[in-house]
Amino acid sequence: MHYGYFNGTITPADQIGVGVTDLGLLRGYGLFDYFLTYNGRPFQWDWYWQRFQNSAMRMHLSLPLEKEETYAVVMDLIEKSGLADVAVRFVLTGGYALDSISIVRPNLLILTEDIHPVTPRQYEEGIKVILDEYVREMAEVKSTDYKRVILMADAIKAAGAHDLLYQKGGEISELSRSNFFIIKGERLITPNRHILHGITRRTVMQLAQDDFQVQERPVLLSELYDADEAFTTSSTKKVLPIVQIGDLTIGEGKPGPKAAYLLERFDELTASY
Amino acid sequence: MHYGYFNGTITPADQIGVGVTDLGLLRGYGLFDYFLTYNGRPFQWDWYWQRFQNSAMRMHLSLPLEKEETYAVVMDLIEKSGLADVAVRFVLTGGYALDSISIVRPNLLILTEDIHPVTPRQYEEGIKVILDEYVREMAEVKSTDYKRVILMADAIKAAGAHDLLYQKGGEISELSRSNFFIIKGERLITPNRHILHGITRRTVMQLAQDDFQVQERPVLLSELYDADEAFTTSSTKKVLPIVQIGDLTIGEGKPGPKAAYLLERFDELTASY
Repeated sequence: MHYGYFNGTITPADQIGVGVTDLGLLRGYGLFDYFLTYNGRPFQWDWYWQRFQNSAMRMHLSLPLEKEETYAVVMDLIEKSGLADVAVRFVLTGGYALDSISIVRPNLLILTEDIHPVTPRQYEEGIKVILDEYVREMAEVKSTDYKRVILMADAIKAAGAHDLLYQKGGEISELSRSNFFIIKGERLITPNRHILHGITRRTVMQLAQDDFQVQERPVLLSELYDADEAFTTSSTKKVLPIVQIGDLTIGEGKPGPKAAYLLERFDELTASY
Repeated sequence: MHYGYFNGTITPADQIGVGVTDLGLLRGYGLFDYFLTYNGRPFQWDWYWQRFQNSAMRMHLSLPLEKEETYAVVMDLIEKSGLADVAVRFVLTGGYALDSISIVRPNLLILTEDIHPVTPRQYEEGIKVILDEYVREMAEVKSTDYKRVILMADAIKAAGAHDLLYQKGGEISELSRSNFFIIKGERLITPNRHILHGITRRTVMQLAQDDFQVQERPVLLSELYDADEAFTTSSTKKVLPIVQIGDLTIGEGKPGPKAAYLLERFDELTASY
């Protein structure tokens, strides 16, 4: 069973009730973060905490807990779950409002959840994504604003695709919940703006630095035509090959060796974490 | 005391707890509506219901209740509140998700709340707003996305202002939670796009049709310079004069006679509703 922390109290997660004046619920004013544990330990904790703190600062929300207190809560929740490894979700909202619009004190929620891994078949076959002309507002903040991809769920399904790849004016940014990379020869290229700076993205770039020339820069749609490989990164997806983007087949239409190599390096790192 | 309806159950509003897998909370996937009662009756009920239904359709959310059932719930909640008049809030979210992203069944919340009327002084003196280069995503849907104005709360306060007036590329759309009008001679002019189509806006246009030439069309920032009057409309604000926009004084910098006339017509309508 999963437990959750809500404003100082730990209870089974399904017993937590968020009041109806919460600004996350009423006004979409919330941010979150999400990470996995490996060997019972929060993966890249320092980086996730830094990002969570940065999101809070940019949304003018004070954090009710210090880093060390939060870590202690997380470890407690992990232990209570009884599971070897879990996903951990932080949600920080504008809190309960007296007038339905003004922040008084943020609400902080910390939950463990089951990990929903990508299927082996998706790694073997790669995934299809469809292009969507969109750029997230405040993309660098991990806000709770995912209206777009939920709204497009039917279109994604109808296309037999897995996700959206956002682009605006021909410049690619990211997938709906994960980052985007292409490989051309020895170059590993990933967009540098209008994106959420993923921790898996950062980890993969670090793992790649000896074997690739890593380029963080604007990436144009036109560059997809001669990409050898493409993949997406997130805590859950790790390094997941993309073999089709709309009508365009990437490389030979199947997962390539370089993404596989990076996934292997990533799995090695997490196995020994 | 205010009561609320949540997925079929009516309880005191402060006892309602929304579960932590709600997509409104986790993913900002929600919409709402909000109206007042006059003489104990929901004002412009047909129009509000139509808008709520339209918002739900555009966000691919099915409504758990029919119009008549909803009306019965609303009347029950009004009676339970023990108040002569109340505000009524509908919130419809993507509901509880099994995977934190996919809609299963929407959650519907209906609440009564205290009315927070605009102070007499604000009607007497008019308000100041500041310009903000922004346009709401899916502006015609009353989604719960109000990140922008909450984020700008400090800037609004620092400017001694009351709200934001959104513009993009020199074209004015709306305030953060209300519509915008200017008066030039006998013309009553209001933006027609990138806006939420307010019910008070619609009511005011209807009330104005005999005395004004009503124009719904794109409105440019440059048109503010020779506007005689400006005002904003919403259920709570009714017809509220705007006397300053950023550094620009509108007309003579005090509420004008034509907005006052429209407010009078509006108050007559609601008094006899």
